Amino acid sequence: MPGDLSVLLVLDLVGTFAFALNGALTAIRAVDVDLVGVLTLGVITAVGGGIIRDVLLGALPPATFVDWRYLAVAAAGALIAFGFSRQLRRLRISIHVLDAAGLSLFAVSGAGKALELGMGPAQAVLLGALTGVGGGTIRDVLIRRVPDVLRTGLYAIPALLAAALVVITSRVGVDQVLGAPAALTAAGVCFAVRMLGLRFRLNAPRPPGHGPRPGVDPRP
Amino acid sequence: MPGDLSVLLVLDLVGTFAFALNGALTAIRAVDVDLVGVLTLGVITAVGGGIIRDVLLGALPPATFVDWRYLAVAAAGALIAFGFSRQLRRLRISIHVLDAAGLSLFAVSGAGKALELGMGPAQAVLLGALTGVGGGTIRDVLIRRVPDVLRTGLYAIPALLAAALVVITSRVGVDQVLGAPAALTAAGVCFAVRMLGLRFRLNAPRPPGHGPRPGVDPRP
Amino acid sequence: MPGDLSVLLVLDLVGTFAFALNGALTAIRAVDVDLVGVLTLGVITAVGGGIIRDVLLGALPPATFVDWRYLAVAAAGALIAFGFSRQLRRLRISIHVLDAAGLSLFAVSGAGKALELGMGPAQAVLLGALTGVGGGTIRDVLIRRVPDVLRTGLYAIPALLAAALVVITSRVGVDQVLGAPAALTAAGVCFAVRMLGLRFRLNAPRPPGHGPRPGVDPRP
Repeated sequence: MPGDLSVLLVLDLVGTFAFALNGALTAIRAVDVDLVGVLTLGVITAVGGGIIRDVLLGALPPATFVDWRYLAVAAAGALIAFGFSRQLRRLRISIHVLDAAGLSLFAVSGAGKALELGMGPAQAVLLGALTGVGGGTIRDVLIRRVPDVLRTGLYAIPALLAAALVVITSRVGVDQVLGAPAALTAAGVCFAVRMLGLRFRLNAPRPPGHGPRPGVDPRP
Repeated sequence: MPGDLSVLLVLDLVGTFAFALNGALTAIRAVDVDLVGVLTLGVITAVGGGIIRDVLLGALPPATFVDWRYLAVAAAGALIAFGFSRQLRRLRISIHVLDAAGLSLFAVSGAGKALELGMGPAQAVLLGALTGVGGGTIRDVLIRRVPDVLRTGLYAIPALLAAALVVITSRVGVDQVLGAPAALTAAGVCFAVRMLGLRFRLNAPRPPGHGPRPGVDPRP
Repeated sequence: MPGDLSVLLVLDLVGTFAFALNGALTAIRAVDVDLVGVLTLGVITAVGGGIIRDVLLGALPPATFVDWRYLAVAAAGALIAFGFSRQLRRLRISIHVLDAAGLSLFAVSGAGKALELGMGPAQAVLLGALTGVGGGTIRDVLIRRVPDVLRTGLYAIPALLAAALVVITSRVGVDQVLGAPAALTAAGVCFAVRMLGLRFRLNAPRPPGHGPRPGVDPRP
């Protein structure tokens, strides 16, 4: 993907931190967990998507596991969530912001890595989205929640959109000129669509005859 | 495995289509999902078993992910289920038929691929069955259902049987002569055992003292 | 890892057997499963941790899948649990002992294999713990139980401790002299901490303000 690797690494680590914080806080709210559980769920949320991506790419051992910086940033995020969960609870909106940030940054870096390793455009788009939604999905399975990606609300769509933008800019050669700016633009589009979807309760279409069930709040 | 690869590819794609349709319809019935959820669950049901097989074989990236035909057929099946779920609902029996078809075809192609890559007979039989049951198991975990393979009713047994037939015919050299017919016969045996099991409510033995609990329908 | 491979293989197989017995008995108690379900859950509990470890190491196909001895021992353990679940039910304490034995032996052998394949110390410690807790976690996801590693009680901590001891003895060169004794000592520490934790209901710290909920037994 785009040229300036150090910028992208920073973005990837910011995404890791955001997801670790989000995963740990989600765990504290949803189930009765201790320090080990909070660390486990925070780290899995942060590095799970990258591990799924690298398994599907055959790029093993996974980068997010071998590179100590990912694990250190993920553990730091989970520990901060553990120590300050009450303070962070008051900032409910910011958790969604952090989640949207992780989703956006991982969708972009995941699609970029897939292109680097020679995947076709459809596979790169899917891998970008999988990198974004994978960690949270494993977290939700472990705490027995229906994964966000299956729920109402736009979650996979902005990730697919960002990954598609990465593939398109790579095809037209823009990334050679813009590098990090192109990546940031794609991530920004994902972030904006996700936040607008939350704000205005936008949903993907439902199966004909299967409208939203009345009285059921999609996000308990 | 057996010689005529184009025939086997067709069988594999038919299995992919059947599982995508089945996975998407199961999702629509079981949980409150939108288009993205239906697509996700349909595609995962269709390609998940092949991905587990290829991870265990070390054949990465997985064929069902790299080869666009699998993804295209899986997405098409899920989209058809999305658009016509009401019409398909009336054909409840055919969903089981499609599921049994996918199970049979994947058990055969999974065992064949394992043999091709040099696995021993026990591993080939297990990988065939895993290819057949893997996608549906991931689907069930995501929608929080007890996986079919753990439920009452014959599900893994016909898949193991078909995979064992592939290994046996390969050992005695029949596949060099028969190719696709041997594969189709193994798949047919799996299909017949699965459907007979459903029809006559056959079950594998239970732990001594743990008979079927009265009043509990094994397939809600 | 440590020199005497045949001793370590025996330890690994003992751990496999213990986990297979434990996984199968857990399945029989928790859900309404038949022979196939008991075998599936017993084998997955026994070999799942090793498969996760080998996927993360990029050591595919996984050793626990390719080497028939692991599968044979795992299947034997599950079959014994199937046939004698009523007799074994009376020995409830021994199930926890077997689980702690599997946890200890796998944490040690997992960390050792990670070091052998050139992982750093942090990764080796994590992989050891993952090898220990991985199989039971997959089992719990399949039967829709909150995984032990997320529950109250010391489960991951003793595994991390044993893996850390393996890494430390490897660093100071003790394993070249002691081999199996060093490995057994690390496993023994894990086993003792786990059993003491169960006996005295020790817990890892909880998030501030999230104490144990009154009236909730952590191990239903």
